Amino acid sequence: MIFEVACRVTYEVDFPSTLILSMHVHDGASQKVLEEHFATDPPLLQSETIVDGTGDRLQRLQTGTCPRFTASYRARVDCDFEIVRNQGLSQTPIANLDTEALGYLFPSRYCESDRVAKLAWDLFGHLQKPHDRVAAICDWIHANVTYTRGSTDSSTSASQTVVQRAGVCRDFAHLGIALCRALNIPARYFTGYAYQLDPPDFHACFECLIGGRWCIYDATRMAHPNGLVRIATGVDASETAVASIFGSVRGGPLEVSCQPAPGENFVPLPPGAQWTVGVSSSDDN
Amino acid sequence: MIFEVACRVTYEVDFPSTLILSMHVHDGASQKVLEEHFATDPPLLQSETIVDGTGDRLQRLQTGTCPRFTASYRARVDCDFEIVRNQGLSQTPIANLDTEALGYLFPSRYCESDRVAKLAWDLFGHLQKPHDRVAAICDWIHANVTYTRGSTDSSTSASQTVVQRAGVCRDFAHLGIALCRALNIPARYFTGYAYQLDPPDFHACFECLIGGRWCIYDATRMAHPNGLVRIATGVDASETAVASIFGSVRGGPLEVSCQPAPGENFVPLPPGAQWTVGVSSSDDN
Amino acid sequence: MIFEVACRVTYEVDFPSTLILSMHVHDGASQKVLEEHFATDPPLLQSETIVDGTGDRLQRLQTGTCPRFTASYRARVDCDFEIVRNQGLSQTPIANLDTEALGYLFPSRYCESDRVAKLAWDLFGHLQKPHDRVAAICDWIHANVTYTRGSTDSSTSASQTVVQRAGVCRDFAHLGIALCRALNIPARYFTGYAYQLDPPDFHACFECLIGGRWCIYDATRMAHPNGLVRIATGVDASETAVASIFGSVRGGPLEVSCQPAPGENFVPLPPGAQWTVGVSSSDDN
Amino acid sequence: MIFEVACRVTYEVDFPSTLILSMHVHDGASQKVLEEHFATDPPLLQSETIVDGTGDRLQRLQTGTCPRFTASYRARVDCDFEIVRNQGLSQTPIANLDTEALGYLFPSRYCESDRVAKLAWDLFGHLQKPHDRVAAICDWIHANVTYTRGSTDSSTSASQTVVQRAGVCRDFAHLGIALCRALNIPARYFTGYAYQLDPPDFHACFECLIGGRWCIYDATRMAHPNGLVRIATGVDASETAVASIFGSVRGGPLEVSCQPAPGENFVPLPPGAQWTVGVSSSDDN
Repeated sequence: MIFEVACRVTYEVDFPSTLILSMHVHDGASQKVLEEHFATDPPLLQSETIVDGTGDRLQRLQTGTCPRFTASYRARVDCDFEIVRNQGLSQTPIANLDTEALGYLFPSRYCESDRVAKLAWDLFGHLQKPHDRVAAICDWIHANVTYTRGSTDSSTSASQTVVQRAGVCRDFAHLGIALCRALNIPARYFTGYAYQLDPPDFHACFECLIGGRWCIYDATRMAHPNGLVRIATGVDASETAVASIFGSVRGGPLEVSCQPAPGENFVPLPPGAQWTVGVSSSDDN
Repeated sequence: MIFEVACRVTYEVDFPSTLILSMHVHDGASQKVLEEHFATDPPLLQSETIVDGTGDRLQRLQTGTCPRFTASYRARVDCDFEIVRNQGLSQTPIANLDTEALGYLFPSRYCESDRVAKLAWDLFGHLQKPHDRVAAICDWIHANVTYTRGSTDSSTSASQTVVQRAGVCRDFAHLGIALCRALNIPARYFTGYAYQLDPPDFHACFECLIGGRWCIYDATRMAHPNGLVRIATGVDASETAVASIFGSVRGGPLEVSCQPAPGENFVPLPPGAQWTVGVSSSDDN
Repeated sequence: MIFEVACRVTYEVDFPSTLILSMHVHDGASQKVLEEHFATDPPLLQSETIVDGTGDRLQRLQTGTCPRFTASYRARVDCDFEIVRNQGLSQTPIANLDTEALGYLFPSRYCESDRVAKLAWDLFGHLQKPHDRVAAICDWIHANVTYTRGSTDSSTSASQTVVQRAGVCRDFAHLGIALCRALNIPARYFTGYAYQLDPPDFHACFECLIGGRWCIYDATRMAHPNGLVRIATGVDASETAVASIFGSVRGGPLEVSCQPAPGENFVPLPPGAQWTVGVSSSDDN
Repeated sequence: MIFEVACRVTYEVDFPSTLILSMHVHDGASQKVLEEHFATDPPLLQSETIVDGTGDRLQRLQTGTCPRFTASYRARVDCDFEIVRNQGLSQTPIANLDTEALGYLFPSRYCESDRVAKLAWDLFGHLQKPHDRVAAICDWIHANVTYTRGSTDSSTSASQTVVQRAGVCRDFAHLGIALCRALNIPARYFTGYAYQLDPPDFHACFECLIGGRWCIYDATRMAHPNGLVRIATGVDASETAVASIFGSVRGGPLEVSCQPAPGENFVPLPPGAQWTVGVSSSDDN
């Protein structure tokens, strides 16, 4: 399925700063970039694409003395996510995880799996299969946390969401990750473009390593599972911010779009936890 | 300088569990393992050495049904840390950092650099050179945080230490890292054996990437800078625990030692922030 | 029903300090002190009984240069708590509460009712009658929080207990209070002696103002509702510590006992939320 | 000195709710109300003035089905605060405090004096006299916390302000109170009208009980010490909110004014910690 994605945002710069933008779609075995274009207006003297440890691509910009610029990106990308019914997938023993996967078992800034460990085992420990646990986690988050725009900020973490019971997609993902890690299921943050997200924005959800595959879960139930285009994955939002800013820069409103390419016959699957999108980790991080 | 290190700890196992031990010394360009020995008593059926992304070596054990075992490790290791007077080293622009180093700029579970950003800039922003900033951070931590055994636990993070003003080496390191990252200086957690640490234990301090080198800082001023033998580095203690336990296992008291090899003429440098130990990141992560 | 209560504790004093002990039983309309005795060994020069705003009695001691002393208290007290089946009691409108009762609607140090407001309304807002809400709160706490000695400390508050799901009687009470206040039910902390508490200790639970009466609830289900002897009530444990210490004093282990007086025919009611003990607030604070 | 104060705010009501407004000025020995007027437009069926334990007056309103109303208040008040140079005042021993004053030594929702105890003793413990300590606390807060509109919200507490180092008058007051209580100085929250506050708003500062008097301190240095008209005091903002809302009501922008009465020759003292306003607690709570 070919998607066309685009985003656009204007930044106000107080003094020469560095930005690392995460808006390029992932380019890998199961998601191939057919064409893409990134530009700033006005052009910045220094702008380069760098690749992180999971193969995600970041755009590093030096603002120089430019006081204000607009970054825009668009891409055509062929997504070949496999829809898996995960009920049968078994948990990979920790004995068999590679060190990269082990890194997604530890607590991180926004996913304090250590703090929510008892909650995780109390609520989900009776379930045996990893998919059943993650699906139950998503159901629980969906039932207990209210999606409320503006209810949280960039410092909100999973343990706070347990108390506040409100948040946005970022918070839903962080809580899901924290609960999964507490149950020894490797889990990572996923950011991407999402088909018909309302209102249009980047989306965040999470992936779990089950049966040797990174499977996508979305506790918000806002995105169609086959309508996601991956930008990046990381331990949590700390690594995958739309813009990591070193200096003093303020971003304006985001314009984001994600549509099937003309001529594609896209049948969106209903949002929810029952379907999951599996991406083989063997060839695609 | 050749050191002989050893450690020993007994674990009680409630049910079959996985442990990942971090007690093997790092083996790299500036620290070469001459010989080493790891064993458990009784021997476990599954025990393997794995290597993480920074080249550190971990021991992964499957307890099986063994209810209690002792892990012991000893090594002879040739440390070739270079003592650097860092005053002249300049900060590497973020524009020039590779993606691995960028990963040490983000907040992590125990180092919420986002929360302490204003503190960092208020107190240290007026200093220009990176070493001056880090040395001032170490001085400030040493002056304001009291080393108090038992004052914190495994959930304590840097922002809590700012309030409580008491902690152990782990907390001193986390706060140092958080403040450095807030100032856009890549910083990572360092665990190791330390010469004449009193009482004997593993030690934790932190490294900053300055002038292209990872330089060690120790805000506790408890270790001799040329008497450290690296075990591992990571974003914080979440990645580098002596034992990461998946299951239910309780560790007993640690026995740890670190001595110059017989015949070595070791002149310990005085603890403190003025000297730093530089390790080239180019050949040794 | 006449109870005999006693307690005894030894304090180590580092330098001249003030202690305010809360171990005298409450003396009021529904609980009358028949006889009591308080002493320190050795005797302290300054020791006086003071009365706080809710009629509870505190013992204020000046240690002077005494390095170590034992405080002991015993009393015979006639408790006339009325056992009420609260199903029929209605919530007092806030419009009718006096200012003293209003003070028990606000968040306090350990009962952050503001932080748990959404939790309270999500889980208990569908219930109509105040007793049904409080009983459901007690059931929920009992089902979701595990009584675990040593799991918390004197800084633990209700919002932390929501995340950690473990605590002691103090934490159970704080969480109950926070949830009640969030639902606009005045709630206060209750400390007392408890019949056959195992192991023997002071007990903490909480009272709600329902239908014009302060009714006792105990989410731990550890105490017999008709086996409680009130020491004090307050906004939370901050006001009703066994010993509020101004200076540097360390308390040893507590010896506490609570028994029916010889000859009394005491039939303990089973612990649980279904019965509640009502104390008229009109004549007894 | 006679002041004329006024305020006005419009509330949107979602369903029948109770509001307790704290905008009436305190009426007591050292601050006498000459005339005042409170009204709502449209008039509400139930509106009454109630008096709390410290003699402050609150206005309790039942919205009934009124969807929107404006509350307005104005008063002429004769303030007879005594300006004291506090250097000579001595700390009242805890042995001599009455139980009401003792209540201002404990931690509260927004003033976790227990958490900041080491900070308080580290920074201010070397000073001997209570006024010197409180003045140093105000200086320290003023130097280390930046007044930043919008940087905090209604859940922010003193320990968070230690880390964030930004806040508004409420946060400055809470931190001052927490530090004073940690040093065993009774401290309470003070809300009032303030002459020429820019922008016009209610003001918050704090009072300490020194030498038998409640003395006002303002770490923000935004108010003239002789230009304050007291509304209420309490353990912290939890008790003294402009509007305590039980139900669902949203307040619009506040209009607040505070001016000397025509004909008064008011000489504002410069803001700062060096002067303090003493109010005898003996006759005026």
